Amino acid sequence: MALPHVPPIDAALEPKLRALLDGKAKPPGSLGRLEELAVRIGLIQNRLDPRIGRTDLYVFAGDHGLTQEGVSAYPAAVTIAMVGLFLSGRSSVSALAKAGGVHVRVVDAGVDADLPEHPEMISAKIRRGTRNAAVEPALSRDEVLTALLRGADIAREAAADGADVIALGEMGIGNSSSAALVMHRLAPAPLDDCVGLGTGHDAEGLARKRAAIAKAAARSDAAHPLDVLAEFGGCEIAMMAGAALGAASARRVILVDGFISTAAVLAAIRLEPAVLDYCVFAHGSAERGHPAMLRALGVRPLLDLDLRLGEGTGAALAAPLLVAAAHLLTDVADLAEVVAGPG
Amino acid sequence: MALPHVPPIDAALEPKLRALLDGKAKPPGSLGRLEELAVRIGLIQNRLDPRIGRTDLYVFAGDHGLTQEGVSAYPAAVTIAMVGLFLSGRSSVSALAKAGGVHVRVVDAGVDADLPEHPEMISAKIRRGTRNAAVEPALSRDEVLTALLRGADIAREAAADGADVIALGEMGIGNSSSAALVMHRLAPAPLDDCVGLGTGHDAEGLARKRAAIAKAAARSDAAHPLDVLAEFGGCEIAMMAGAALGAASARRVILVDGFISTAAVLAAIRLEPAVLDYCVFAHGSAERGHPAMLRALGVRPLLDLDLRLGEGTGAALAAPLLVAAAHLLTDVADLAEVVAGPG
Repeated sequence: MALPHVPPIDAALEPKLRALLDGKAKPPGSLGRLEELAVRIGLIQNRLDPRIGRTDLYVFAGDHGLTQEGVSAYPAAVTIAMVGLFLSGRSSVSALAKAGGVHVRVVDAGVDADLPEHPEMISAKIRRGTRNAAVEPALSRDEVLTALLRGADIAREAAADGADVIALGEMGIGNSSSAALVMHRLAPAPLDDCVGLGTGHDAEGLARKRAAIAKAAARSDAAHPLDVLAEFGGCEIAMMAGAALGAASARRVILVDGFISTAAVLAAIRLEPAVLDYCVFAHGSAERGHPAMLRALGVRPLLDLDLRLGEGTGAALAAPLLVAAAHLLTDVADLAEVVAGPG
Repeated sequence: MALPHVPPIDAALEPKLRALLDGKAKPPGSLGRLEELAVRIGLIQNRLDPRIGRTDLYVFAGDHGLTQEGVSAYPAAVTIAMVGLFLSGRSSVSALAKAGGVHVRVVDAGVDADLPEHPEMISAKIRRGTRNAAVEPALSRDEVLTALLRGADIAREAAADGADVIALGEMGIGNSSSAALVMHRLAPAPLDDCVGLGTGHDAEGLARKRAAIAKAAARSDAAHPLDVLAEFGGCEIAMMAGAALGAASARRVILVDGFISTAAVLAAIRLEPAVLDYCVFAHGSAERGHPAMLRALGVRPLLDLDLRLGEGTGAALAAPLLVAAAHLLTDVADLAEVVAGPG
């Protein structure tokens, strides 16, 4: 079992893309970060006329044994209920994806229930929820590898099927704790800087969450990405890391959602640094650790809307910006034409 | 000639909209500023199930006598060339609007040329460019009133024709100088804080621009919005102010682009404060005065992408966020349904 090879970006294309944008009928650089995004997409697709036709958003779902320690304000059963809501098209991410022309599919990476089959759900269950990371490794090394490879396959199949952008979202009660531990070891960053309120907590709940995370961190000094994913990771986090590897190997744009998706992509980047070149970070989350994790990666997200829901909601909102950025390269006249005098 | 009446927002609807959002299947407030946007749209449309079906973007074009003082890095003839490019669908804003599902129309508010007719252009010329504001009033009071009323008519016709959002963009060589003077008097703010690089200037060009603007400011102590628009305003700025009044009178969302569009809307708000309640600010521009002008209005824009082009490019990029925000109210299940147990 080998992880997919990620081709390096051809840096020689960058000055060509910039020259193309500078030659468009507008003052050079006047579209700011949208021009940077256009360059990024051109580099990923390795062409001067990139195209964003279809964005597929995968919502990776998984449960977490760490919830036994009371790390979440919500009971674990909410994961299952939310999967049902994604499939019915009436979740938040469904509503935003519809607005943004994004196709949503759900991946059962490790939900703690036997879910009925559904045409929009990929059954890729690694196990029914992780073990409790506060007392033992959440996953075995084999489970992590299986999750990575399964994620990579999902992304490569999406690419082969015509997706230009593979957006990564997630659902899993307790997974902001898992993501905090991944960030702590792989950013790396002090544990306190990695733990936030998640989707909802009061002061008491946050103290309980901090204690459980500290207990898990004290149990293992894992620092290699595969070990970190095994000790602390969720099925959905490991599978998203694999999807990032697979998407990059297929030269597709990886559109990263919020805190948990970024932690998964961080693991993929620590395994294969070239993955970073394929990533577009959709938004800066209101979750405490997200800004520091983005800084550790040296990236700036597109949107800043104080979202803290996950599911892929930020990715769904950012998706139209990618279409727009690619249009800059393909649909705007050159300055030379205008100087010559248009109609 | 009376300016349109702007109905006040029904504030009683706000707690109902918030309760509706808090009852959705997500932690309360977890979609941050997108929820604020949903509330704003609901208040503007005065309904709990708002809908953003169509966004019309009007690019108001006009020339400026102030260019005789060398305030712009580009010759005035560029305004005409750009109008041609908008109509051919190969401008920057055309490309971004296409990506965002936005319909672009051009308004000849005061281009210094006789433009041929075009199905996507509204001929509403007040005069062939303004007078040179450094030496005399740019417009007469009658010209300002005509521009306001014509702009209001354009917006009301768009509303009657089915536009849910009326987005305001502009093109006019020299109009960042005009907008700086409007901001200076109506924000109000010190002149130095209002003058920036525009779409492109070197240090020498900026010094020339500052000198011309100071000369214009010294010529008149106008402070009433109508006088400020006459002394310093452009045809396109006055007409956009009128369009804001007209859109608000028809209870439509006004999607405001960058520095110049915001200056126009500022004038409308100073004439009729209720207009502010109908505005959504698309992006924070890289143009120097924009952040301070937004602060003076007490608002925060949706996007922050370092754009400084104008044309309505930021509005085109923000348009899909409005569709998404409205979907939150109409397309997401209530928490009660999920707790009861979905499929």
